[in-house]
Amino acid sequence: MKTIVIVGAGMMGSAMSIPLTDNGHAVRIVGTHLDRAIIDHATMCREHLTMRRPLPRGVQYAHVEALEEALSGADAVICGVSSFGVDWFAERVLPHIPVDVPVLSVTKGLEALADGSMRTFPHALARKCPLGHSLNAIGGPCTSYELADRRHSAVVFCGDDARVLRRLKALLETDYYHVSLSTDVVGVECAAAFKNAYALGVSLAIGLSEKENEAASQDAPLAYNPQAALFGQSVREMGKLLALTGGGSENIVYGAGDLYVTIFGGRTRKLGALLGRGFSFDEAMARLSGVTLESVVIATRAVQAVQTLTGRGMADGRDYPLLFHIGRLLAGETGAPIPWASFEEGLTG
Amino acid sequence: MKTIVIVGAGMMGSAMSIPLTDNGHAVRIVGTHLDRAIIDHATMCREHLTMRRPLPRGVQYAHVEALEEALSGADAVICGVSSFGVDWFAERVLPHIPVDVPVLSVTKGLEALADGSMRTFPHALARKCPLGHSLNAIGGPCTSYELADRRHSAVVFCGDDARVLRRLKALLETDYYHVSLSTDVVGVECAAAFKNAYALGVSLAIGLSEKENEAASQDAPLAYNPQAALFGQSVREMGKLLALTGGGSENIVYGAGDLYVTIFGGRTRKLGALLGRGFSFDEAMARLSGVTLESVVIATRAVQAVQTLTGRGMADGRDYPLLFHIGRLLAGETGAPIPWASFEEGLTG
Repeated sequence: MKTIVIVGAGMMGSAMSIPLTDNGHAVRIVGTHLDRAIIDHATMCREHLTMRRPLPRGVQYAHVEALEEALSGADAVICGVSSFGVDWFAERVLPHIPVDVPVLSVTKGLEALADGSMRTFPHALARKCPLGHSLNAIGGPCTSYELADRRHSAVVFCGDDARVLRRLKALLETDYYHVSLSTDVVGVECAAAFKNAYALGVSLAIGLSEKENEAASQDAPLAYNPQAALFGQSVREMGKLLALTGGGSENIVYGAGDLYVTIFGGRTRKLGALLGRGFSFDEAMARLSGVTLESVVIATRAVQAVQTLTGRGMADGRDYPLLFHIGRLLAGETGAPIPWASFEEGLTG
Repeated sequence: MKTIVIVGAGMMGSAMSIPLTDNGHAVRIVGTHLDRAIIDHATMCREHLTMRRPLPRGVQYAHVEALEEALSGADAVICGVSSFGVDWFAERVLPHIPVDVPVLSVTKGLEALADGSMRTFPHALARKCPLGHSLNAIGGPCTSYELADRRHSAVVFCGDDARVLRRLKALLETDYYHVSLSTDVVGVECAAAFKNAYALGVSLAIGLSEKENEAASQDAPLAYNPQAALFGQSVREMGKLLALTGGGSENIVYGAGDLYVTIFGGRTRKLGALLGRGFSFDEAMARLSGVTLESVVIATRAVQAVQTLTGRGMADGRDYPLLFHIGRLLAGETGAPIPWASFEEGLTG
C-alpha cells in the first residue's frame, strides 16, 4: 500500500481517488483555496459536490492550510488543479514535495510564449520550480464522471523517465483504467490541449443543426455529415499542429479519441453549439455561466501561436482554416459562415 | 448542362441526383434488377422508397432493360451499386459506357486476394473490364439521408487522372457538397472501407453501456470514455492498415471523419451495439433483418488479409487487437471481453 496525495479537489483530481483506492492505496485529497465547499461536503457526505458521485471510503480530506502535513509520507502526488492553477501549484505546492516523489498532473493546456512556441505544463512547472522533480502528465480521452463510474477509460501517462512512468502506471491501472505510456511529452500534451479548441469547432455543426431543425419546426435528429466534416478537418489540423510543435504524429490517436469524448462527454460542446447557432461569444458565455473556459483559452492561444509562427515564416496560417474560424468567433465575430470550401484538399500540379 | 446517368437506385446513388440537379444538370437514374420497386415508386411519387426523401424534379427513371438507351449521350456515369453489385457493374454496365465517359463510384469496400493483399473497387473494375475507362470513386464521410437534406458534407473524389477529377468536381460541387481531390486511390478507398469494420468496434461500447445501464435500472446517458477509447484504438489500427496497404497516412483524416459519421449516422451501429450487449452474431443478425452487411464483409476480409500477411511475415497481427476481436465476434464467438489491455502502448527499452 502506497500513500498518494491529490492536490486540487476538482472533479478529475478527485476521480483519480477511485482507481487508487480500488488498488488498495491510501489517498489524501487536499483542496485549494477554491475547493473549501467541496472538501467540507466530501468530509461530511463522502460525495463530490460538483461531480455528484460518491467518493471512496477511507479517503482523507484536508483544506489547503494542512497541505504540508498531508504531503508528509507521500509516495506520489497528483496535481489536480485546472490550467488556471498551474502557477499556484508551481509556487505553493511543488516546493513542499520532496524531489524524489513523482508528480502526475491531470491538467490539460499549454502556455503560449511570445515567439509563437507553446510550452507543456510539465515543462512549465519544471521551469517555474526547477528543483528536479519528476513531472508527468495524463493525456487521452477520459471524463471524470465516467472514471468515477468505473467506465473503461484509456489514458496515456507521459513523462521523461520510463521507470517513473511504469511506477505510476502500477499505482493506478485497474481493470477499467487502462494506461499507455509515452516519453513524448510534447506530443501527448499538445494533442490533449488542441482537442479542446477543435471540440468547439465540431460543436459548431451541432448548433447549426439545432438551428436548422428549429427553423424547419422539425424534431429531427442532429445531422452528422457536417459534424463528421468538421471532425475530419480537426484531425487534419491537429496533425499539422503536432508537426508544428514537434510532437509525434502517432499522438493523433489520443487527439482523435479525446476530441470524440470532449464533443460528447464534455462541456465545451455547449459553447460550440451556441456559437454555431449564431450567438456572439459574449451572448453564449452569458448563457453558460459556470462552464469551464479552458477550451477558449487554448483555442485563443493556439490561434495566436500560429499567427506568430506564420509571421515568422515558420508556419502557414492557411493550413488552419477551422482554427482561425474558431478564433474569429471567440473574438466576438458573428455571422461568419463556416469556411467549408477552405477545408477542401486540392491536387498539386 | 451535362447529362449524368446514375446506375443503381440505392440511397446513395439516388442522393447524388440532388447536387447534380442543383447544378442544372440532366440526371437519369437507372435501377438494377433489385431496384424495380424503387424506380416505380420514384416515377410515380418523386420520392425515394427506402430513403423517404423527395427526389428532384426533372430526374428521369428507367429500369435496367433500358440501360443502353439511358446511357446514350451521357457525359459521366455514377456507379451507385453496393459492394455486392461490383461484378455485375463490371460485366453488364461498363462495356456499354464509351471509354471517354468518366465513371464515379459511390461503392465502398475492397476485394480480398488470396495473397493477403486487397484491391480497391476502381482497380477491380479496371481488371474485370479492361477497356480503359477512367474509374474514380468517392470517399469521406457522407450519409445519403443527409446529402438528400442538403446538409454540409465533405467528401473526396479519388482517381488516377487529375483532369478528370477536376471535371467531376465541377459537375457535383455545390455550396453544401464539398469535394476534395486525391490521386491516392488506395489510401482513400482503404480508409473508406476499413472504417466500416471499426464502426462495429466502437459500437461495441454503445451496446456495453446500454447493457450496464439496464442492469443498474438506470436511464443514464451512454458512456463515452469507452467509445472514445475504442475510437482512438480504431484510428491507431486504421493508420497501420493504411501503411500496410500502401495508402498515404494523411487519409486517416477521411477514415476518422467517416468512422464518426458511420457510428452516428449509419446502420452499422445497430449491429455493433447488439454484439456489444453480448448477443451472438446470428442472434444479432436475426434482430436486424434488412440491415446492410457491408461492414461485416469488410471486417471479415480485413481480418483474413492481416492473418495471411502475418503468416507471410509481412504484417504483425498483434498490431490489430480490436480488428481481431471484431473478427471473433463475427465468427460467432460470444462472451469474449473487449481486450482493453492489448490496446495499451508501452515503452520500448
